[in-house]
Amino acid sequence: MAEEDQGALPPKGDFSAWYNELLWRAEVMDVRYPVKGLYVWYPFGFSIRRNVYDMLRRLLDRDHQEALFPLLIPENELAKEAEHIKGFEDEVYWVTHGGLTPLDVKLALRPTSECAIYPMYALWVRSHADLPLKIYQIVNTFRYETKQTRPMIRAREITSFMESHTVHATWDEAETQVEQEIALTLEFYDSLCIPLIISKRPDWDKFPGADYTVAVDTVMPNGRTLQIGTVHHLGTHFSKTFGISFEDEKGAQKPANQTCYGISERSVAALIGMHGDDRGLVLPPGPAPVQVVIIPITIGKRKDEVGAAAAGIEKELSAAGFRVKIDSRDIRPGAKYYYWEMRGVPLRLEVGPRDIDAGQVTAVTRLGEKSQIARDALVEGVTGRLASFAATLKERAEAHVRTHMRVSRSMDEVAAAVEDGVTLVPWCGSRECADLIEEKTRAAVLGTEVRSAYLVDASGPCVACGKQGTTALVGRSY
Amino acid sequence: MAEEDQGALPPKGDFSAWYNELLWRAEVMDVRYPVKGLYVWYPFGFSIRRNVYDMLRRLLDRDHQEALFPLLIPENELAKEAEHIKGFEDEVYWVTHGGLTPLDVKLALRPTSECAIYPMYALWVRSHADLPLKIYQIVNTFRYETKQTRPMIRAREITSFMESHTVHATWDEAETQVEQEIALTLEFYDSLCIPLIISKRPDWDKFPGADYTVAVDTVMPNGRTLQIGTVHHLGTHFSKTFGISFEDEKGAQKPANQTCYGISERSVAALIGMHGDDRGLVLPPGPAPVQVVIIPITIGKRKDEVGAAAAGIEKELSAAGFRVKIDSRDIRPGAKYYYWEMRGVPLRLEVGPRDIDAGQVTAVTRLGEKSQIARDALVEGVTGRLASFAATLKERAEAHVRTHMRVSRSMDEVAAAVEDGVTLVPWCGSRECADLIEEKTRAAVLGTEVRSAYLVDASGPCVACGKQGTTALVGRSY
Repeated sequence: MAEEDQGALPPKGDFSAWYNELLWRAEVMDVRYPVKGLYVWYPFGFSIRRNVYDMLRRLLDRDHQEALFPLLIPENELAKEAEHIKGFEDEVYWVTHGGLTPLDVKLALRPTSECAIYPMYALWVRSHADLPLKIYQIVNTFRYETKQTRPMIRAREITSFMESHTVHATWDEAETQVEQEIALTLEFYDSLCIPLIISKRPDWDKFPGADYTVAVDTVMPNGRTLQIGTVHHLGTHFSKTFGISFEDEKGAQKPANQTCYGISERSVAALIGMHGDDRGLVLPPGPAPVQVVIIPITIGKRKDEVGAAAAGIEKELSAAGFRVKIDSRDIRPGAKYYYWEMRGVPLRLEVGPRDIDAGQVTAVTRLGEKSQIARDALVEGVTGRLASFAATLKERAEAHVRTHMRVSRSMDEVAAAVEDGVTLVPWCGSRECADLIEEKTRAAVLGTEVRSAYLVDASGPCVACGKQGTTALVGRSY
Repeated sequence: MAEEDQGALPPKGDFSAWYNELLWRAEVMDVRYPVKGLYVWYPFGFSIRRNVYDMLRRLLDRDHQEALFPLLIPENELAKEAEHIKGFEDEVYWVTHGGLTPLDVKLALRPTSECAIYPMYALWVRSHADLPLKIYQIVNTFRYETKQTRPMIRAREITSFMESHTVHATWDEAETQVEQEIALTLEFYDSLCIPLIISKRPDWDKFPGADYTVAVDTVMPNGRTLQIGTVHHLGTHFSKTFGISFEDEKGAQKPANQTCYGISERSVAALIGMHGDDRGLVLPPGPAPVQVVIIPITIGKRKDEVGAAAAGIEKELSAAGFRVKIDSRDIRPGAKYYYWEMRGVPLRLEVGPRDIDAGQVTAVTRLGEKSQIARDALVEGVTGRLASFAATLKERAEAHVRTHMRVSRSMDEVAAAVEDGVTLVPWCGSRECADLIEEKTRAAVLGTEVRSAYLVDASGPCVACGKQGTTALVGRSY
């Protein structure tokens, strides 16, 4: 449906231009919807989204339950938790009329669902036997963004927000849950071949109403960080406000401890941004709508024979569970290669008369690695190539993050490092020094207690004041 | 999470009371959300919803593509098609503020998505080669209902609206598509064991902006009809308004023909209402979250042996693809039967020492049919019983509709028939006579060109005016 176009993308080095152009050329999202900050998922893009969220659902379903709560939150419920409403009131969309009738109580479009879910939890949780309670939903949420909007990264309708809300008897059990959600997040992004940096957000940057917030960031190609998941320990802030209490083993009423946890369609933005190249999307096999495309090479007269061979390959791979497609359009093979490369298909199989005669198919990965697969070991061959393709994507992504994550021990080093990456710095922990870092480098202290596969200790004298500091993550973020 | 309660439901004969009570006892929906007409899907209810919509998706994915369009529609787009806005303006929710800022253009929460989708179709459709275009989405939609609301049947947030929107070159092709959507709807509801009556809505009751509307209704236990799907031939009304045109083979620009088609969570309401009984839900195997529950009968000392036998049965059935659960809670078997009957589980397997000794398991369907399955023919036995259980549900439902669908040839007969069912009547086709029928019987002319497995011809003298009439469907509807 996007115009057929054989032109080149802007180079990925010009990340913003590349990202915007790629989204419509690969038919991921259309930005031409007539309201700022609202975007349309094309069918192809939506099938990536479906696969990504199916993967997330499978992980969550191990020990969470999916449910669904209303979009509309009455003003009085949203206002109950003081810090929470303060954090959201400037960016909430308000429904004020039903038809021509003004509503008695204004209704907010959920910016997140604490205030929709917790009044129900207050009814559902009665006794320690009801705990732990672990429920998630995947819904649209809304923020009236005044900053520059960008598809999947900063949108006014977040179309696909997974939010999990758990309830526990004790603070420690909730903390254990926070760690379990982090582990789940690592597993999820591992299946998308996206490396993560985990850190605890500074106090002033935590979720409104939380005891603390742990965030997962990744480093985009231009060195900016993208927050692609957050887990919040809510302590008893919300449970006291909403009356979520339980009778413990001894018959005493206690306020519950809670966590919440979110992953948005930024997961898809990260997938696209991390792996794509100058020729288009590059998708790992897990989320790829088409994992294998078969191109019949029908030069000359053995057309029917080649067609039958392609059909046989498709049948065998489909039966083995692969998402596979034959492209038998009447256009030249080069145009087909361009088309499927733009759409990130991990593996292309070419089959022509010479392949048939040699009892093989020619396999080319999206990164251009060419090899032959024996026709009688097709499933094995495809399985192996997809696995090693995923491993390569993972290595490339890890190399990118590793090389864009330096240690800086002076303000000048910080300023240089954040030009194209993130940096670990010694920081004393004070808000004043964080503000000074931001003023001098236009990069923020993102978090402490940094965890990553590439962690180097950066404790030492604070880059701002010189007092003894511990490791902080600093970067420019979306 | 619902309170444990062993009390009885109201009898199904008192349908409204039964329905409301069942929804929370079986943990389908919680009606206590603090806004009228908005409801919460419990995890168990949501898993029914997930299964139902997965079934629908599988059917649609054969030749439609899933996409996703924004919730918010700017006022000027919604107002473009005159009849359409007239049909919806009284029941649209309006967003007027972002934070404290009044919006320049008011935004409607989609009541349905023609006006969100068709501006994009105008960009996407260029040539006959782009047609047909068949796209669907599953989304939340909103109606400011002023009538009595009821979970899944008449809600202010329809949480799960499948809407399909197709574009074609000619009116006839769009008509063929209407028939294909009807066929798909029949197949979908057949998998839910729900019989349908198809009819063409009278002109004054068609979708605002459509050439004609075909609706599918079913007959609920109390005899009222529930509209559970509609297909609309839109002709060129919207395409002319939104500029959806294409270049045909000869290079001429032509307005496209369109259809749209919707199925909401009323499909789940129908499933619950049609099959449930005085003891709770009765679910066909397709949508049932748990298809088989295993109850270990552990009286006496062979507890471990029974536990191991139950685990073996679960493992074998899971591997065969069934959704299966062992209930090994430390409560008496009777309480477990009650619990799983309330939740509609199609098949209960009991395994105790005597079953082990006899090399069998005891199977009881949700309708109480008891039999033994040889342990070494377990998968076969379960497959057979579930299939015959589904067939029984289908027969029961068909018998219900058949016996609640009479032919009436006088106003008195109509009035009597609609007390507990629908009726086919001869009708001359005039609005005046339809109004007279409604006035005298509090039942509406729902449609003509009636198609159903139980169709009897009811042409003859119009029940209102005596002129020659053709068959019309008359009933009281939700």
